[in-house]
Formats: sequence, C-alpha cells, structure tokens
Amino acid sequence: MSLAIRPARASDHAAIARIILPTIRAGETYALDRDLSEADALAYWTGADRETFVAEADGAVLGTYYLRANQAGGGAHVANCGFMTDAAATGRGVARAMGAHALDRARAQGFAAMQFNFVVTTNIRAVRLWESLGFAIVGRLPGAFAHPSLGFVDALVMFRTL
Amino acid sequence: MSLAIRPARASDHAAIARIILPTIRAGETYALDRDLSEADALAYWTGADRETFVAEADGAVLGTYYLRANQAGGGAHVANCGFMTDAAATGRGVARAMGAHALDRARAQGFAAMQFNFVVTTNIRAVRLWESLGFAIVGRLPGAFAHPSLGFVDALVMFRTL
Repeated sequence: MSLAIRPARASDHAAIARIILPTIRAGETYALDRDLSEADALAYWTGADRETFVAEADGAVLGTYYLRANQAGGGAHVANCGFMTDAAATGRGVARAMGAHALDRARAQGFAAMQFNFVVTTNIRAVRLWESLGFAIVGRLPGAFAHPSLGFVDALVMFRTL
Repeated sequence: MSLAIRPARASDHAAIARIILPTIRAGETYALDRDLSEADALAYWTGADRETFVAEADGAVLGTYYLRANQAGGGAHVANCGFMTDAAATGRGVARAMGAHALDRARAQGFAAMQFNFVVTTNIRAVRLWESLGFAIVGRLPGAFAHPSLGFVDALVMFRTL
C-alpha cells in the first residue's frame, strides 16, 4: 500500500466525515459528544486553530489527523494531535504513518514536544502505538472516561519531546 | 473578612477584568496568550460553556473562578476550574474559599471528579492549596510551560474525586 499524507482540502470533508463520525458516534475512544452533528464534527476536526491532514491510498482517504498547539501562551510550544483511521483500514499502518508524519510536521513547525491529553486506557492499540513512537505515559486520570460498554475507565496523558 | 461567593453578573465584568488581565499579562501561571484583549479574556473566563463566580467582601470583588466540564462526551463527568485572585488580596484565604465552593458546586452539578490540567510547578501556592483540598498530582508534563523569567518548567495534572 502506497500511502500519501497531505493537508486536507475542503473537498476532503465528506471523506473525513465518513471516518470521524462513526468513531465519534461509538464514543469509545474520544471524549467528544457522541451526538455531534456532522457540521460540528467537521468544524472541530478542521478548525482554524489546527492543521488537518488526510492519509490517502489509491485515491481513497483512509485516515485523518489534526495538529495544533495544546495550550496557548507559555504552553504553545507543545503540540497536540487527534488521529482517526477508517475502521475498514485498521491494521494497515495508517495510524503509525500518520503519527510519524505528525512528529515530523510538529518539529518543522517548531514545536518542542507533543502531548496527548486523553488516551483511553482501553484503546490498547493506541497506547501501544504511541509508546512505540516514543511517547511516555506521564499521567493517569482515574475513571476519567465513561466507556459506553465498560463503564468508568482510566485515561492517560502521553508526552514526548521532539 | 466576610467573603461571599456568588454567580458573576454582567455588571461584574469590569471587576473580573481588573483581576484576570494582570495575571494573564504576567503569564506566570496560566497557559493563555499574554496579549489576549480584555474582550477575549472576558469571553474566555465567562464563556457559555462554564459557570463563572466572584468572591466578594465589603462590596469589592477579590477573586473569580469558573467551573465547566473538562471534556465532552465520555469525559463530561469530570469538572475543571480556573481560579484567579486579586494580587492585593493574596494570603487572605480567597482562593481556598473559592476552591471549597467549587468542589461543592461541582458536586451539586453532578460531577464525579475535578481535574486541573495545567498547574505550573512554580506556582507553589496553588499546588499546596490544591493538595490541601484533596487533589493528587496524577501527571507531570516535563517542561510544558515557558515561564517568562524561569524558562521551561514542568506543569502538573491534579485530580480528585468528589
């Protein structure tokens, strides 16, 4: 599979919505309102405060991520990202490729570190992926996520310098 | 000193600005843009997604805080707050009274826990206050805050159940 990662265009919004809406509706991995409208979900994912990318193979968008500053002011040197992959494309390295791309892009933008604020512990695939990309667990939020089928589970804060 | 804590009204905005702007401009404790305009600072502090309170003694506003959900969706049962006290009123228990008020208010609103995402380690007074109010340090973000005079310092994630 030849994967190309490039900035998202307005013409990608339908493909982005097709990826992010099922994940948001499932409510198992992101602390976002499960009933977010398509317009609000796209406004969030492609907001003016972030850069949004898509990962494309053979003309099909298989994943998307955003990159932004995690905080303003004295915290603006730390980046933050969100990643979502088409459920039908999991296990093909899309998330890993986007993660590596995000680290490069964050460095190029002058960020000194990257932080994920809320990695749900039951999202084991994500935790392992970020650890393999050099992130450390720097915080654990007890019971901070209400999983729709598992109940209250912990969320992790993950961090790495760039 | 008889301190009353009550919801902020539009007529409190000038007093709130007088408290929050010097703290934002100093940039030593909050990861907010130091150049935030008064209008943007007030829009942030009194936004529709939060409840804003003032602490008042003898008709003077000495402190202010907001209470909101820290995350949406599966994270919405955890509250988040921001607190600022008039520099001229420090050491008089205003922040402690607001903290206790916030815990009660969060419980009354049905929150199950409270989280502070970014307590700058050099803000020793704040770290001690939150520990004395039952918060634990559950995360440490290495060098995540660029202090204007001390350089890169750590920030803490603090958490307590309600």
